[in-house]
Amino acid sequence: MLVLRKPYLLYVGDAKLKPDCKTAFGLRDWCREDVLAEWSHPDGTVSLDLPRMSPADAAKRGAGSIIIGVAPLGGALPAHWQDDLEAALLAGMDVVSGLHTRLESFPRLVAAAAAGGARLVNVRHPGLAHGCATGRKRTGRRVLTVGTDCALGKKYTALAITRALGQAGAKATFRATGQTGIMISGSGIPIDATISDFIAGAAEDLSPDAAPDHWDVIEGQGSLYHPAYAAVTLGLLHGSQPDAIVLCHAPERLTIDEFPDYPIPPLAEVIDYYLRAGRLTNRAIHCVGLSINSSSLDDAGWVAYRARLEAELGLPVCDPMRGGVAPIAARLLAS
Amino acid sequence: MLVLRKPYLLYVGDAKLKPDCKTAFGLRDWCREDVLAEWSHPDGTVSLDLPRMSPADAAKRGAGSIIIGVAPLGGALPAHWQDDLEAALLAGMDVVSGLHTRLESFPRLVAAAAAGGARLVNVRHPGLAHGCATGRKRTGRRVLTVGTDCALGKKYTALAITRALGQAGAKATFRATGQTGIMISGSGIPIDATISDFIAGAAEDLSPDAAPDHWDVIEGQGSLYHPAYAAVTLGLLHGSQPDAIVLCHAPERLTIDEFPDYPIPPLAEVIDYYLRAGRLTNRAIHCVGLSINSSSLDDAGWVAYRARLEAELGLPVCDPMRGGVAPIAARLLAS
Repeated sequence: MLVLRKPYLLYVGDAKLKPDCKTAFGLRDWCREDVLAEWSHPDGTVSLDLPRMSPADAAKRGAGSIIIGVAPLGGALPAHWQDDLEAALLAGMDVVSGLHTRLESFPRLVAAAAAGGARLVNVRHPGLAHGCATGRKRTGRRVLTVGTDCALGKKYTALAITRALGQAGAKATFRATGQTGIMISGSGIPIDATISDFIAGAAEDLSPDAAPDHWDVIEGQGSLYHPAYAAVTLGLLHGSQPDAIVLCHAPERLTIDEFPDYPIPPLAEVIDYYLRAGRLTNRAIHCVGLSINSSSLDDAGWVAYRARLEAELGLPVCDPMRGGVAPIAARLLAS
Repeated sequence: MLVLRKPYLLYVGDAKLKPDCKTAFGLRDWCREDVLAEWSHPDGTVSLDLPRMSPADAAKRGAGSIIIGVAPLGGALPAHWQDDLEAALLAGMDVVSGLHTRLESFPRLVAAAAAGGARLVNVRHPGLAHGCATGRKRTGRRVLTVGTDCALGKKYTALAITRALGQAGAKATFRATGQTGIMISGSGIPIDATISDFIAGAAEDLSPDAAPDHWDVIEGQGSLYHPAYAAVTLGLLHGSQPDAIVLCHAPERLTIDEFPDYPIPPLAEVIDYYLRAGRLTNRAIHCVGLSINSSSLDDAGWVAYRARLEAELGLPVCDPMRGGVAPIAARLLAS
């Protein structure tokens, strides 16, 4: 498992557009207590509304890592960004990157990491070794977020459920399977970067044996209905052995995003298919609710949509951004 | 896609047990026309009953590759084997290995490959780059062998169907997804070694657009019922977009091999589950027959088993080793 050194200094380079800094904003919102400060190049105009601190100062205050929280154009690291990252490495901080380009391809960073005794961490290319799945039932309880499609709130929902379980007095751990999730939680396994033979094995490693009343809340990936990524989804489902799933959906999504020939089936059918697949490694698997990204609906539309779905499926229907997921957490704890 | 240089010199080191030379025997039996000769160390006692030829002589007669057809103890390559492989490389032949250990970890072989202008080919670690699957329907027809479990005849069945289609006058190509299959056909993609995100994409690359009456016969991997490997199976199924599947099974197999807690369901349910999963990328998918490894049954037992299954499922039931797969090929051509 990847384990990152907290607290973080969030770096946004010379970004001029907030959407380019999605990762930094996500970390600020979801692990504010682990974020010491922000830093950027003088040419940048985006601020996270956090204290500004240079890499050297942040290191003195105990920062463990500088996180590249901005997507550079074309995946290359501009030379003036490398100045800042080099300063962080020389001060002993790890550099954490979710870019396609490996940090090791920049000789200045390799040299600075060696000089500062710090690590170059490529969250997208972790180089972790996993064994084959054993299929052995583990102790503790698990819930996995699954989706009709990609990019409709599986990470957000898992984080919200983890919080809601904690607020309800239960023990719960968020288990990250994607790069932003890993940065938020400080550990995890980027499941889509594993070798195919070991997907389920990696998912087993991610949520080890735990106390009987402890919940692992596992961030889902992809969709069983996605023509490119369903294999990742299935391996994660099998290795996670979830007792419960939460189905994530966005009502305006009628086909898989960017795959107009791939319709999303009725939600009852989607739930049935996930449960059929998941039953292989946990015969007691059941669905405890739906998490809806309802941003396309006005208030009246959302109330009507939710009422219709709850009546149809007999399950709590929530939007983590619109009222929270407490009913799903309650259903989990009652199950 | 991996492409190997034929014809082959089969190498069995100093093997003393035939089962250790499974790969060499498989190649002899399934691509005899591509095998020039065999070679072994004087201490070995296993022969493939082929002409013996030293690497230097084989190279003179046009051999393109020496194939390591034997599993060494512990995965290491004994120094006296390296003598033979070095001679082959210096004579310009590629060395092809299915071992876990990469050939590049032996400095003598790296130097000899450079000197001889030859390649070190690790079938298990091909280092191929694939894109994400597109889900686009391709031209030509496709049949995929699927299984209730691993290691019960999916490769053998695909090879037999390819032959039977050819004998029936149809155009057919065997598409290899595992290392022995790749050595037999001379090309392919070891699907379980791909990065998880690209399994379906790799499967799309494996069987590109083809003539409308051409059949790709794709070697299946794993099983949707396998707790460790189902993800590989699903990605291969989705990317292959098969028009037809053939279910492979062994009657004595009641649970997944080495997973006694994982029962194999009734075959009608297995077929239904594969078709439900495969329908995502090809709505016309159907099952054209069952291929049974009946070695555990006597003649009377096999006749009774086959009759019962055919009546129950309404599909041809064959054993490639016991009467061949012509009825399945006929069903494919009529479909």
